[in-house]
Amino acid sequence: MNHDALLREAIQLSMEKMLAGEGGPFGAVVARGGEIVGRGWNQVTSSLDPTAHAEIVAIREACRRLGSFSLEGCEIYSSCEPCPMCLAAIHWARLDRIHYAATRDDAAAAGFDDSRLYDQLVLPPAARELPMVQSLRDEALPAMDAWRAKADRVEY
Amino acid sequence: MNHDALLREAIQLSMEKMLAGEGGPFGAVVARGGEIVGRGWNQVTSSLDPTAHAEIVAIREACRRLGSFSLEGCEIYSSCEPCPMCLAAIHWARLDRIHYAATRDDAAAAGFDDSRLYDQLVLPPAARELPMVQSLRDEALPAMDAWRAKADRVEY
Repeated sequence: MNHDALLREAIQLSMEKMLAGEGGPFGAVVARGGEIVGRGWNQVTSSLDPTAHAEIVAIREACRRLGSFSLEGCEIYSSCEPCPMCLAAIHWARLDRIHYAATRDDAAAAGFDDSRLYDQLVLPPAARELPMVQSLRDEALPAMDAWRAKADRVEY
Repeated sequence: MNHDALLREAIQLSMEKMLAGEGGPFGAVVARGGEIVGRGWNQVTSSLDPTAHAEIVAIREACRRLGSFSLEGCEIYSSCEPCPMCLAAIHWARLDRIHYAATRDDAAAAGFDDSRLYDQLVLPPAARELPMVQSLRDEALPAMDAWRAKADRVEY
């Protein structure tokens, strides 16, 4: 499948699964060499999981299918520009490239918080709407040190 | 349990589960009124899931246990400042407050990408390291319109 066909598959999922009551109007596919290895659609309200965005679901399925926590060599196709959670997940999954159709502003116009979230993330922690409180840093550092000292650690 | 005790529980998970080979040195708990409703630790390499960060795992468990996609009224305690993926997930989960111990710089010093990711997210899509390609926007908008027109949609 070429890029357009893969993006259309994501768009089709965004409509079909939303109409079926699975969640918001978002679909995504992960592909390697033009072959789909993971499909996802928003399932926040149907699976009672606020992290079950289309891209996250597609990434998790692709990783299960490929037996790896890295999707290097794969690309993701999303019906809409990924929200910050999904964009960061795409980084962590080491995907090569993102293809998307609608934008964060289109999502905002449909009632989703993506655009506001992007604005919040650039603020320093103390300036964000969501209160963030730091303490006990000294007690958390030994785990970081132990990680660096762990000879058999699997990096990711 | 008070705030310090809850944060210490997250810190203990960060050490214990990392030493057990589950993944990176990160732990988190979600609590409501001082009672733990979800526990999480990094399981990226053990579960082959790049999205299985401590906070995401804790949020998913709390939602399962409470039977809701909203964690309004709950707070999250993380052994380390959340990465952008987890921070956005915390927003989507409607958590009231974040308590954390180590910082993004501590994570960076231990070899994790969090800090670079925060830098990337503030850039416009075209300026990011990860290539982003937009197309077919017109084909994606009907699903957004259909969502707005859906009388029985469940908002989240």
